[in-house]
Amino acid sequence: MALADTRYSNRRRKLMTELSGQRVDAIIVTHLTHVRYLTGFSGSNGGLLLRKDLSALMATDGRYTTQIAEEVPDIEASLGRDVGPHLLGQVSEDLRVGYEADYVTVSQLERLEKAKPEGVTLVPVTGVVEKIRLVKDNVELQKLEEIAALANQALTELVEAGEVAAGRTERQVAADLEYRMRMLGSERVSFDTIVASGENSAKPHHGADDRELCKGDLVTIDFGAHLRGFNSDCTRTFVIGEVSDFAREIYDVVLRAQEAGVKAAVPGAKLVDVDAACRDIIANAGYGDYFVHSTGHGIGLDVHEGPYAATTGKGTLAEGMTLTIEPGIYVPGKGGVRIEDSLIITSGAPKIITAYPKDLQVL
Amino acid sequence: MALADTRYSNRRRKLMTELSGQRVDAIIVTHLTHVRYLTGFSGSNGGLLLRKDLSALMATDGRYTTQIAEEVPDIEASLGRDVGPHLLGQVSEDLRVGYEADYVTVSQLERLEKAKPEGVTLVPVTGVVEKIRLVKDNVELQKLEEIAALANQALTELVEAGEVAAGRTERQVAADLEYRMRMLGSERVSFDTIVASGENSAKPHHGADDRELCKGDLVTIDFGAHLRGFNSDCTRTFVIGEVSDFAREIYDVVLRAQEAGVKAAVPGAKLVDVDAACRDIIANAGYGDYFVHSTGHGIGLDVHEGPYAATTGKGTLAEGMTLTIEPGIYVPGKGGVRIEDSLIITSGAPKIITAYPKDLQVL
Repeated sequence: MALADTRYSNRRRKLMTELSGQRVDAIIVTHLTHVRYLTGFSGSNGGLLLRKDLSALMATDGRYTTQIAEEVPDIEASLGRDVGPHLLGQVSEDLRVGYEADYVTVSQLERLEKAKPEGVTLVPVTGVVEKIRLVKDNVELQKLEEIAALANQALTELVEAGEVAAGRTERQVAADLEYRMRMLGSERVSFDTIVASGENSAKPHHGADDRELCKGDLVTIDFGAHLRGFNSDCTRTFVIGEVSDFAREIYDVVLRAQEAGVKAAVPGAKLVDVDAACRDIIANAGYGDYFVHSTGHGIGLDVHEGPYAATTGKGTLAEGMTLTIEPGIYVPGKGGVRIEDSLIITSGAPKIITAYPKDLQVL
Repeated sequence: MALADTRYSNRRRKLMTELSGQRVDAIIVTHLTHVRYLTGFSGSNGGLLLRKDLSALMATDGRYTTQIAEEVPDIEASLGRDVGPHLLGQVSEDLRVGYEADYVTVSQLERLEKAKPEGVTLVPVTGVVEKIRLVKDNVELQKLEEIAALANQALTELVEAGEVAAGRTERQVAADLEYRMRMLGSERVSFDTIVASGENSAKPHHGADDRELCKGDLVTIDFGAHLRGFNSDCTRTFVIGEVSDFAREIYDVVLRAQEAGVKAAVPGAKLVDVDAACRDIIANAGYGDYFVHSTGHGIGLDVHEGPYAATTGKGTLAEGMTLTIEPGIYVPGKGGVRIEDSLIITSGAPKIITAYPKDLQVL
């Protein structure tokens, strides 16, 4: 028999401790990322009913009977396609049951209300699983390092093979990078790959289209791999052929800002201050209006998750959190630069898990 | 100035006609697929407020100012990050405003309730945009044909290049197929590619892992491309090296079932009968217990959308709908076969847009 991983039961304990102030006796979790986080179940339909005393029940549909038994040997699962109502229908005592209001739709809530036995009261709950996900354990951090290393290897191979070059289209470069990640073991991209060249590099959210890379272009590549639930996220900007004064100037400013952000990312640092560490350098160089997004986000089971380093950022960093530092300058019509690392917050300087060099590379 | 496409205004008219029986004066649409369907806006944050008289207002955030003006020249847009509450806050008269209860979360509804002016009443609405999406116009059908042809071309190249072969892993085959789709112009996969070989072919929802293809294996490849909002979906099953009696038998049964399903997919046919056309052949061959899913689904802006051909299917087919026909037999421990086409329902026989041959191919 498979042994249950105590990491999952520890998380469930933390969740119920976190909920102890909220007058709920149990919680129904149906957001799949949270189900996976709390139990290890990786199927595409599943739910968890967890009580204060940590007794638990799961539900999934017939496709996952074997999988749920293997992945979650310590929780009994029953079969039902609409897992939330199915679980709620099995409660026989008077309970106040929390549900995750940020993920449950109005229609789903209506189905929960219909399925609930008389003694059950449904209570909206927000942000609790997100809160305990903020600090990662060693296994999570190791998996994040592995997937970041895989993506880094793919970018290294791409550049060494000369596949980022004048005459190739953005889409071809993206396809080659994705192919290399896939062959190294990535299950999918963690988000649509960005290859933004020339004037497109001035659009922070450009995708990858049919534009051909040209001599003198800035080319921003923002990409991620995905393996067993975990995501990577890294951005590098290259120059094709020759470097203009403009390109060198904004590259240098962004790199200085990025390094200042990394340096600021230590336990106890306020997230607004980490953002400011980047933003001030860009503003002082006269490009403040061209840094149009926030500085960074955590990374884990989601490619964007807390904490958030932004002008509106809340709270402070702690050891075991993750954070991207990704300042950029985007000058419409001229071009842009973004440089992004993913970090693990440690007791000392943060650990950069996106190892690709950051000096300006001319390809 | 860009001219507005009348296809979008026609859809908005249809939506308000559809809603006329529901006592709502306006609707707020924030589900992005629906925003795109009703306006042409393809950004990742946007909303539409549409009134009975077809006057409309849109909202998006600062990243999409230029894009929304280009894509939706006939509707005024204002800037706000939380687009639903932002739009609702601009209503100055007494209105009953519908919202899409299947997509709006409980937290989002709470924010709508907070933002609404005194005279506004929020009314849950379900299934109306889905209903008008069922029948596609000629432009939609043409785009679906194009993306299906692209995916077909990629599979043809993959097989001709000898990339489905003993000794290669499922993941390598998937990577090669995805790469070929990407280089032909696909923006991304429409779902995680399935390459299920040997005993894995008996799992309908297997992904693609490190198993090496072996002589005698059945190999099911289920894959899709995505271009400008539209998806493709096609499945073929191959045999590696030599065909066992078992493989030939279940392949023949599934192919006969699939062809019967295609034949049944004509205007006026009940969706339960289309499902039965496949299912009966498989059941009569003694494999009824091994066909563990429904027969098919529509395809368009979503890779799975209405209509649904299933034992619980509701309604009938009409000209201009799309439908996959994808029966399968899955015998645990031995292997499985699935064959899937995407169809356009026409006045006569359905048009198969997934042109790859269906005779048993030994690779």
